[in-house]
Amino acid sequence: MTQDIVIEPLTAAAFAPFGDVLNCDGAPDQLINAGLCGRFHDRAQIDCQEGRPGISLFQATLRSLPHLLDMVERHPRGSQAFIPMSMDPFLVVAADDALIPRAFVTKPGEAINFHRGTWHGVLTPLSGPGLFAVIDRIGDGPNLEEHIYPTPYRVISNH
Amino acid sequence: MTQDIVIEPLTAAAFAPFGDVLNCDGAPDQLINAGLCGRFHDRAQIDCQEGRPGISLFQATLRSLPHLLDMVERHPRGSQAFIPMSMDPFLVVAADDALIPRAFVTKPGEAINFHRGTWHGVLTPLSGPGLFAVIDRIGDGPNLEEHIYPTPYRVISNH
Repeated sequence: MTQDIVIEPLTAAAFAPFGDVLNCDGAPDQLINAGLCGRFHDRAQIDCQEGRPGISLFQATLRSLPHLLDMVERHPRGSQAFIPMSMDPFLVVAADDALIPRAFVTKPGEAINFHRGTWHGVLTPLSGPGLFAVIDRIGDGPNLEEHIYPTPYRVISNH
Repeated sequence: MTQDIVIEPLTAAAFAPFGDVLNCDGAPDQLINAGLCGRFHDRAQIDCQEGRPGISLFQATLRSLPHLLDMVERHPRGSQAFIPMSMDPFLVVAADDALIPRAFVTKPGEAINFHRGTWHGVLTPLSGPGLFAVIDRIGDGPNLEEHIYPTPYRVISNH
């Protein structure tokens, strides 16, 4: 029987087991450019084994809610950051080692970084252009594992 | 006497002496996620000496045209990518070793990466939220040189 997953607000604490939330909450770490720019410094734990981090662009098809989650994947050799290139929130799914998924939604202007080896859903924009910058491992050797759920989960809105 | 700099369109060829243009022009390098996502792979020459690349967020004050350019800066130890987190074009200024500046404007959905040691203007959003992800060197030791122009340049629109 299909189980429902209710989307949770994305907070640093709730997301800590899976990765980093990058946003401009709070004061900047540094004011630069004669005070005209705030730097929120070094907010992601980049971790690329036997390779190097690179910047790629992802152009993703929009999805809608309720969202059928039929698989998760992980990258054993590298972290992966999803940086939206528009101010649209997007859906973030992550799972623990027992593969129990949780779902979050970003606020406008938030990015996330999955820690190396974290099970997660694929890039899932819900609105906007579906354009993201992705910071992940560039290198040889296998770096993708997939898990198919025998029965898909249904990710639903919390309101 | 103040000299005018007319903004040029940002093309990969015109920008090649200074860095990389990251966009989704052309076909993706790879289709992933069951064909629902195009990956434009590894589009920036990240180059961080005596340090590592990190992801920071910059919250920058909006500027307007004509823009008075009174300085450029460079980072001798690292490349620096400016990734807009909104679909707003932004102004990009870069200069050659003789410090002659050129000005470009991005199209919506484009990011840029300055090569290590390239003279450039500070982050200059012209519209939108002024929010950017910046991929640059995290590390100790000096990594900022500034050049002040005795007479500012005036950056003007090309239309």
